[in-house]
Amino acid sequence: MTHAAPAATHAAPSGDPAGPGAYVLGVDSGGSGLRVALGRLAEPGPLATTVCAEPVRTGPGGIDAGHLLDQLLPAARELLERASAAASAETRSDAARAGGASAYEVAAVAIGAAGMATLGERLRAELPGALADALGVRRVALAADAVTAYAGAVGQRPGAVVAGGTGMIALGTDLKEWHRADGWGHLLGDSGGGAWIGRAGLDAAMRAHDGRRGGSAALLDRLRAVFGPAETLPGLLYPRSDRPAVLASFAPEVAACAGADPVAAGILRQAASHIAEAAAAVCPASAEPDGEGGGAGEVALTGGLFRMGEPLIAPLREELARLLPGARMTTTTGDPLTGALRIARALAAGGLRLPRHPTMLFVPLEQET
Amino acid sequence: MTHAAPAATHAAPSGDPAGPGAYVLGVDSGGSGLRVALGRLAEPGPLATTVCAEPVRTGPGGIDAGHLLDQLLPAARELLERASAAASAETRSDAARAGGASAYEVAAVAIGAAGMATLGERLRAELPGALADALGVRRVALAADAVTAYAGAVGQRPGAVVAGGTGMIALGTDLKEWHRADGWGHLLGDSGGGAWIGRAGLDAAMRAHDGRRGGSAALLDRLRAVFGPAETLPGLLYPRSDRPAVLASFAPEVAACAGADPVAAGILRQAASHIAEAAAAVCPASAEPDGEGGGAGEVALTGGLFRMGEPLIAPLREELARLLPGARMTTTTGDPLTGALRIARALAAGGLRLPRHPTMLFVPLEQET
Repeated sequence: MTHAAPAATHAAPSGDPAGPGAYVLGVDSGGSGLRVALGRLAEPGPLATTVCAEPVRTGPGGIDAGHLLDQLLPAARELLERASAAASAETRSDAARAGGASAYEVAAVAIGAAGMATLGERLRAELPGALADALGVRRVALAADAVTAYAGAVGQRPGAVVAGGTGMIALGTDLKEWHRADGWGHLLGDSGGGAWIGRAGLDAAMRAHDGRRGGSAALLDRLRAVFGPAETLPGLLYPRSDRPAVLASFAPEVAACAGADPVAAGILRQAASHIAEAAAAVCPASAEPDGEGGGAGEVALTGGLFRMGEPLIAPLREELARLLPGARMTTTTGDPLTGALRIARALAAGGLRLPRHPTMLFVPLEQET
Repeated sequence: MTHAAPAATHAAPSGDPAGPGAYVLGVDSGGSGLRVALGRLAEPGPLATTVCAEPVRTGPGGIDAGHLLDQLLPAARELLERASAAASAETRSDAARAGGASAYEVAAVAIGAAGMATLGERLRAELPGALADALGVRRVALAADAVTAYAGAVGQRPGAVVAGGTGMIALGTDLKEWHRADGWGHLLGDSGGGAWIGRAGLDAAMRAHDGRRGGSAALLDRLRAVFGPAETLPGLLYPRSDRPAVLASFAPEVAACAGADPVAAGILRQAASHIAEAAAAVCPASAEPDGEGGGAGEVALTGGLFRMGEPLIAPLREELARLLPGARMTTTTGDPLTGALRIARALAAGGLRLPRHPTMLFVPLEQET
């Protein structure tokens, strides 16, 4: 299919990489759908956001670039038309000069996608050209979702982000290169993430059921309340295709038991230890303590995992203090969509300081200004 | 379909439950196919065995009893015909009296099946009648594969068996009831089994790849030799439907590294601890130490897991000595097929002492003699 390019009206002074009134788009493509944020180059924050509920398809060749565009372009055009109309209404003389036609400039788009690292070949090959054709976009960045999470949580400073949900991944940078730890999925790692915590809790419940050492009667009670008789759980879990999500659904039960149950508390302490290990592996050296009394590095926690609150955060604070005594732990509301918008804005302004990488942060059409 | 019953010739003295020349059949139905063993009631060991390579189908209603019979009956008839012909050739006058027709009596059949506990409803409902019709069988036992493993490894004495392969389950009995521990599959337990060991080894390899604490460079080398670059492993593993088997395929690599690599050795010690915990949970009280210097209980190890040898057996011996100081650990060559034949022979002779249970050991047609 073809995507017709609307006329792009340049309002920027000549010589400038993009006009201060130009738009930027941030995109977050994940398992629960595609989110798009529109912003102005010269203003912080998004003007508007929209959500396409259908997750982008992936096939043998990777993320389906056509399917992504089919959702992204109408959503982006609608956001741009609405913003242009609102801007025109404010400055009627400009609208009259433009003859009523929609007039906008999209200086940059940044797309963060789950699976970019392993599944993004077609995205990298097809998307930048298609966006240039369809929206007149001058600059495009394709990022792993961990990178947009980093940008949303830490910004363009050196540091580390831990993105925790069903899984768990840590990403750090000294602004020279990226360091990644874990994020290997529920069978190879994701240690300390939601599925890991839930699985450990169910293991402890089954131990209590069997009379094995390490069991927790409290967690067995919760297993029965949530899933029914313990011996029926394998028959419920294994036929499911979303087994990691089923395991992660038990993580809040572990947190709820941790106040009174030492086994549950031990699981969360172990999870905190694994999360701190991942953060310590990626946090840049400047954030580690030195002879002068410690660095000023930042470890930002982001994602649904940390909504578990103090039962996990309290031991994590202790483990981080032990492994990274110089670092400052923050919890953040800046999400991957915010991060994508930040990357787009920095790219448009010629100030993207995060390191480029073929699968972490790919900028194929970057041009000298 | 119908299964015509051949004429059964009774050679036993009247009043006896079955003639000493009667046959018994043991069946082991598992993931790699159906195995059938034929024996004589009054002689130890099998006369002959055969293998049907196609695993018995399971559907929403459980194990497919028709599919099992379609494979079992021709295999059993062939074994019986061959054995009868051989017996007739030895005693020609008997063969002449029988007029050349095949003449055999099947006193009992015992079928051990993986998934009996949760998937065996149709087996229990349909199989005994069908076997009576088709082979004139007088007694039928349906057993969980852990029970035939017990019978093969321990026999009819009190004790415990640990059956280890990709998974791990422990089963014990005091001859009054069964006690089961673990065997909950690779996400809920099977702690210390092949998939557990392999997964722990791959986790340690990925930790080394990331620079996280707890990593093993030796295991990372083995991961690369077996699977290729570490970062490609998730893409190889997660699309597979036999993920537990893929994980378990790495367990021998962990064992091979354990001599020189403390992380690998630690994984096997942890596995041994989990296995001992399961054995301790099911071993009957008489096998635990008492004031008189310890019981005489037996913990039998069976299954492919223990072919790993001393790297696992040595720490397991120590862990068992710690948790069950009175117990005697044995490794055994008696497999579930041997166990099924033993159960059939005991059932035919009226001497089955293992406890009956709806899903562990079901004897629907037991008759008084």
